[in-house]
Amino acid sequence: MRESANAQAFARISGAEPVVVDVQPAMDVVPGMSPNIILTSGAPMTWERYYGGQRAAILGAAQYEGLAVDASDAENKILSGEIIIAGCHDYGCVGSLAGIYTASMPVFVVDNPTSGNRSFCNLFEGKSPFRLNYGVYNRHVRENLTHLQNDIAPILGRVIRACGGVALSPIIKRALHMGDELHSRNTAATLLFNQTIFPALMKETRNAEDSARVLYEYLSGGDYFFLRLSMAASKAASDSAHGIEGSSMVTAMAFNCHDFSIRVSGMGDEWFSAQLPPVAAKLFPDHDDSEIEFMGGESTINETAGLGGFAQAAAFPLQEYQGGSVDKMIQMNLAMYQITLGEHPEYRIPYLSYRGTPTGIDIFRVVESGQTPVMDIGVAGKNGGQIGAGVLTAPLECFQNAATAYRHRYLS
Amino acid sequence: MRESANAQAFARISGAEPVVVDVQPAMDVVPGMSPNIILTSGAPMTWERYYGGQRAAILGAAQYEGLAVDASDAENKILSGEIIIAGCHDYGCVGSLAGIYTASMPVFVVDNPTSGNRSFCNLFEGKSPFRLNYGVYNRHVRENLTHLQNDIAPILGRVIRACGGVALSPIIKRALHMGDELHSRNTAATLLFNQTIFPALMKETRNAEDSARVLYEYLSGGDYFFLRLSMAASKAASDSAHGIEGSSMVTAMAFNCHDFSIRVSGMGDEWFSAQLPPVAAKLFPDHDDSEIEFMGGESTINETAGLGGFAQAAAFPLQEYQGGSVDKMIQMNLAMYQITLGEHPEYRIPYLSYRGTPTGIDIFRVVESGQTPVMDIGVAGKNGGQIGAGVLTAPLECFQNAATAYRHRYLS
Repeated sequence: MRESANAQAFARISGAEPVVVDVQPAMDVVPGMSPNIILTSGAPMTWERYYGGQRAAILGAAQYEGLAVDASDAENKILSGEIIIAGCHDYGCVGSLAGIYTASMPVFVVDNPTSGNRSFCNLFEGKSPFRLNYGVYNRHVRENLTHLQNDIAPILGRVIRACGGVALSPIIKRALHMGDELHSRNTAATLLFNQTIFPALMKETRNAEDSARVLYEYLSGGDYFFLRLSMAASKAASDSAHGIEGSSMVTAMAFNCHDFSIRVSGMGDEWFSAQLPPVAAKLFPDHDDSEIEFMGGESTINETAGLGGFAQAAAFPLQEYQGGSVDKMIQMNLAMYQITLGEHPEYRIPYLSYRGTPTGIDIFRVVESGQTPVMDIGVAGKNGGQIGAGVLTAPLECFQNAATAYRHRYLS
Repeated sequence: MRESANAQAFARISGAEPVVVDVQPAMDVVPGMSPNIILTSGAPMTWERYYGGQRAAILGAAQYEGLAVDASDAENKILSGEIIIAGCHDYGCVGSLAGIYTASMPVFVVDNPTSGNRSFCNLFEGKSPFRLNYGVYNRHVRENLTHLQNDIAPILGRVIRACGGVALSPIIKRALHMGDELHSRNTAATLLFNQTIFPALMKETRNAEDSARVLYEYLSGGDYFFLRLSMAASKAASDSAHGIEGSSMVTAMAFNCHDFSIRVSGMGDEWFSAQLPPVAAKLFPDHDDSEIEFMGGESTINETAGLGGFAQAAAFPLQEYQGGSVDKMIQMNLAMYQITLGEHPEYRIPYLSYRGTPTGIDIFRVVESGQTPVMDIGVAGKNGGQIGAGVLTAPLECFQNAATAYRHRYLS
């Protein structure tokens, strides 16, 4: 049974054809969203356990949304249950770093017609190292979020609708031939997306030069723009493979400020967790390892779906950004074939003679080999903000926990 | 003396900072151009020796320019000297395949402020395999050339001027990190160029939706668009290093339908030639090697300046397009370090841990090692049109001839 369940799960995750169809406020499109909910990354915890940047981001979100007048007011309302903290993944969303969705924030709407499911991701906050999802909330961050919501999202949504939606797999496929692995490097994908929507952008903004300029500046203002679309695409692919009875395939990897956690297709919505290991990081100038702080992260959905660290041999330029060497990148990428169910039929790596990326992590292959997934992640600093990038290697324990639970459920 | 002359030549070719500043009719900007001149690729020959596609292209050009009513009329006027056939390189130009410049055809104007020189390249004819530079002249080709001249060139020039010129080295540098080697693959460079000019394109075409659409279609209609700019950039770099007394560095590699030829910095404008060797090609479906025909080519200026075959380890996707394997590409790329004077300070290859591309071919290193330059080229068919792509390995003999002449001039 496990074998056929996993074959089905692999077919779903690798056969997804995600299409971004709109940009809308979370409240209007995310099922179950409510004005007093704040979504954050990783397996949900009791409020007391959130600390540092992830805690600061949640408190900032409450203020941004007008749910609280200040941080102390927000804390009280969270403790009283007036403000509800929940996990992104439970709402079809996926969070970058701290995550952070409030009701009014704009999200990409991504459909996967192959399986009929839908996912969401919020928008890249831009190049500044100081962003809400990196644990910072101040006037600058607030104004930028307002700008995204009022100036960028409406015209971006209009342009995407005018395109009749934009298919994401063809862009991801091409970007893998152009130095991206779609997690820490989205440079080519961002250019390809922009190229795709430009005719509509020109047409839709013809009588509004300011809108065109503002949107163009946003689209070309950071090579990370497409990350939110690759995340939503991977979430749509992964969700379509979730809930298959008997499947031992991983359908989500995520972390909060304490724990790294996974979900498994045949194991419902339970998270299997273990303490976060250290990250092997290359930091921006004038930073050191003592400043590194985990504040959550779900962009590892990309590795779950065969991208990021699982496609790093497509992205040798990353050695400059997150450290490491070409040989190490190749070796890590090849190691992922040991723990996956198959090779992606569309996502291919030129350096590996167009071999498909290793896709569909099997908890038993991880436990038996002792090899755990490697992930390309952004690294946050204790005072908030991005201070570098690096490679995170998942702890074995959460896969062992999942395997034990799987055996208990299916084999006892 | 040779050592210091070569150091100077290398500094010039690798220190160029080419900027495209305009698009104008050849007649208005190319020094020495005249209404009755047709420029074609490779060392100039007597008219009788031109055959096949290169001959057809020249005859087509005469008709396109209105210099002759038909092919036979054109032949007579060429034989009588009424129409003059000359080499692109002698006019600061560089030809793709057959080359082919007439007075009214638009050209990119590329300045190299570092050395104060200027070069030119005509425009990519678009995706159709049937193009004048691939030896075809018919109604479709004529209409397309007219479209380039009347519809594309004026607005493209206006946009480039509105940008205040576009620096090409930064685009080339980034594209090398994105799967391009800038000869047979210009996909990323084309996207990056488009991204750079889009704000100006939107502004300049705001009141002319048709112009915007037409120009956009041209810019995004083929991944080869940027090749003409990388060629002009390489020509500007190479020319800036030409004419240095005592230098044995190659400043041009070009071929006509018979011979492969090189120019050497310290050896004036003489071409050193040898018969063209076979090309190792991967052909489009339904073609075979018996159809391959040489019809000239000067895009090998890119290899002369450290790109193309000299940067192929940056462009593993080429294995799908022109054949070969990743290992072979790496090995060929590494072999080029044996025959070059240095490593380019800006053009770097991620796979080789960001080593600079091998730049500045020294005829003596070629002769002593027996290793000749490898070049990524488009392959034409006997009936005209592109039928594939491949790798051309230069014949040793022309380097031997150049070395003999060098010794005669400088060492006897």
